[in-house]
Amino acid sequence: MNKETSRILKRIDALGEISDDKQCLSRFYGTKSHKKARKKLLKWMAKAGMQTSTDIVGNVKGVLKSSNPNAKHFMIGSHYDSVFNAGKYDGPLGIILGIEIAHAFSKQNTELPFHLHVCAFADEEGCRFNIAYLGSSLIAGNFNKNWLKKEDDYGYSLSRLMKKNKGDFKDINKNIIPPESWLGYFEPHIEQGPVLCDENTAVCLVSGIAAQNRVNITWKGISGHAGTYPMDLRNDALCAASEFILGVENLGKQNKEKLVTTVGKIKSEPNVSNVIPGLVSHSLDLRSPNNKFLENITKTLYYKALKIAEERHIELQWEIMQSNPSVTCNNQLKEALATSIKKYNKKLIEIPSGAGHDAVMLSNVAPVSMLFIRCKEGISHNPEEYVSPEDIETSFKVSFDFINELAKKNEYE
Amino acid sequence: MNKETSRILKRIDALGEISDDKQCLSRFYGTKSHKKARKKLLKWMAKAGMQTSTDIVGNVKGVLKSSNPNAKHFMIGSHYDSVFNAGKYDGPLGIILGIEIAHAFSKQNTELPFHLHVCAFADEEGCRFNIAYLGSSLIAGNFNKNWLKKEDDYGYSLSRLMKKNKGDFKDINKNIIPPESWLGYFEPHIEQGPVLCDENTAVCLVSGIAAQNRVNITWKGISGHAGTYPMDLRNDALCAASEFILGVENLGKQNKEKLVTTVGKIKSEPNVSNVIPGLVSHSLDLRSPNNKFLENITKTLYYKALKIAEERHIELQWEIMQSNPSVTCNNQLKEALATSIKKYNKKLIEIPSGAGHDAVMLSNVAPVSMLFIRCKEGISHNPEEYVSPEDIETSFKVSFDFINELAKKNEYE
Repeated sequence: MNKETSRILKRIDALGEISDDKQCLSRFYGTKSHKKARKKLLKWMAKAGMQTSTDIVGNVKGVLKSSNPNAKHFMIGSHYDSVFNAGKYDGPLGIILGIEIAHAFSKQNTELPFHLHVCAFADEEGCRFNIAYLGSSLIAGNFNKNWLKKEDDYGYSLSRLMKKNKGDFKDINKNIIPPESWLGYFEPHIEQGPVLCDENTAVCLVSGIAAQNRVNITWKGISGHAGTYPMDLRNDALCAASEFILGVENLGKQNKEKLVTTVGKIKSEPNVSNVIPGLVSHSLDLRSPNNKFLENITKTLYYKALKIAEERHIELQWEIMQSNPSVTCNNQLKEALATSIKKYNKKLIEIPSGAGHDAVMLSNVAPVSMLFIRCKEGISHNPEEYVSPEDIETSFKVSFDFINELAKKNEYE
Repeated sequence: MNKETSRILKRIDALGEISDDKQCLSRFYGTKSHKKARKKLLKWMAKAGMQTSTDIVGNVKGVLKSSNPNAKHFMIGSHYDSVFNAGKYDGPLGIILGIEIAHAFSKQNTELPFHLHVCAFADEEGCRFNIAYLGSSLIAGNFNKNWLKKEDDYGYSLSRLMKKNKGDFKDINKNIIPPESWLGYFEPHIEQGPVLCDENTAVCLVSGIAAQNRVNITWKGISGHAGTYPMDLRNDALCAASEFILGVENLGKQNKEKLVTTVGKIKSEPNVSNVIPGLVSHSLDLRSPNNKFLENITKTLYYKALKIAEERHIELQWEIMQSNPSVTCNNQLKEALATSIKKYNKKLIEIPSGAGHDAVMLSNVAPVSMLFIRCKEGISHNPEEYVSPEDIETSFKVSFDFINELAKKNEYE
């Protein structure tokens, strides 16, 4: 194992130990452990020779500046928040690879023809406020101010949390790098699916990222005594939600070639065993490579929900939280990355991403590219998540070569 | 309004203001507000001339002792815990009526031929540990020691909570009044259903209480990434639970004449919008006046759950928490109560109780009787719960007369 790989592995482990939960890895946005991870990342970036800073969302940024003040910007990035009971590679691997690449350049005193940024995005998973890409949306000038009112499960608002960070709300979509100054964005990330394992290859190109809609659904029925309220007079919010959840699953299964549908989060009130549920709210996550198809599916499910609500005399709230069209990776960057893959990996394949990534937000301002890295059995969002040291070594060699070859060209103004 | 009714109403209001939640009435077992209510009840009982005490579960007990040391025991009781977002009459009305009756006897210096107890049971709803009748089970010598290991939603165990009360775990089913020393138990309680409103009558006799089974069900699937996990490879615990919940509702509706079925409480893990639910647990509450039928229904649902688990490759846990057969109210006490009802109420009807009450536990040791009091539109477990002052006055007159007539007989040794 070379010393870069060994340092990457050590840092993955170190970050993986910073958790809010003693039993498992859980690093939601803005928690104690999240802030602890932020400090560690700042330290590593400084050690790698970068100028460091943070922003109002909590992104951790490092930059190796080109001596040319008009140089364009290139960013390597991924996220440092996690889901609950997470794996340690999802997010951190991309950041730590980026820091290692910057380290290699600063060690060699390479004269860069572009400003090389490494960004650790504060929140990509969206577990706390049910809003994905909070971190990268700021970098892309896409932060929606309505999000500030959103509250977590304990009634703590996003604006209250963000007030503790440096920066000003009124500048939230200002001071960003304008689209014409971007050279590109690169995100190395674990695949989180089984294809690279099946194909027996360490890394691959990513063609693009599936479109995704996130909806919050609330069913307002009538609570009542479980022992005295007759069955045919009930307006049970949990039964309505259950009927809908099965409908969501069925539609997903019927269109399994081009769709995944998930209800991942649910909350019931008053949530005691001897009272009929009066209020149930739950998430809905829909993804497809096809924008138009996803819109149709979303409408179909909305009408299904309306019908259930009407039949059961239950009030429906349907709130679209996010709607991200599919993203296509930039062809020029993809070709350059393909050249680097062919140098260090036996095989060259290209797959689409079902999972969303910060590249979705960055695609609003920059040409984007992604490298997928094999994870064992495709398992992710789970403590069993694993990437072999050999695959990490390959991913570092490919990523460094990709940036290094870009740096050799001197045509970026 | 006479002064008894006015004091009862004041106390109902005072107790109704003691809540753990600022927005609504919520007084779960062992919380801050629960302890505050305990103190208030002790004070009222002492004021009514009773000897007071508490026990290891947290029951609040008052007694007017007969001068005959061999006298039998008669108890008036109900519970002082509440559901979340509760009404203020469910439980407290019975206790406060009992205190008022004791007060009337002690004021008159009545020589009682039995020891007259008033008991405020610590937990009847079972919201915190999903175990109903914690309080009355102790009085009836039926406390199940396995319950001590049970934890609330925050991992706080029942034994830890109970250690703060007076008493010793090893005596938990000792020092109780033996069955042969019981004269009877009487519980005045709101109906929590619509019959008394429909019949336009303030109070009625209760024939008995429905049998009830409480089950905790856990579905263990596999969590995974909502964007990358194909639909046909999923083992989604929430979809399994949803299929079951709809099955529970259907069976209830098919047998609506003699059955109510409720899933009131649900918890999903990891409970974030972009992860497939790996673990879902929920309650199941089944009630019927017919013991045998309820057993059959419980079995039917168990086999349904097994089938769903098998088809979906999901692990099923089925834990029966409580199984209470139906209870028949004592004929002699019912006849005596009927005589009192006829004195103060225009109508005499008798109905079964779909809701469970502490009388279920007491029926293990004592002849039991219940008086139902009309509540507006039959609404209960809801802040809209309401009993009119006129109906409270009637219920006090009937209850006092019932106990007073029993006291006039002197044949209780």
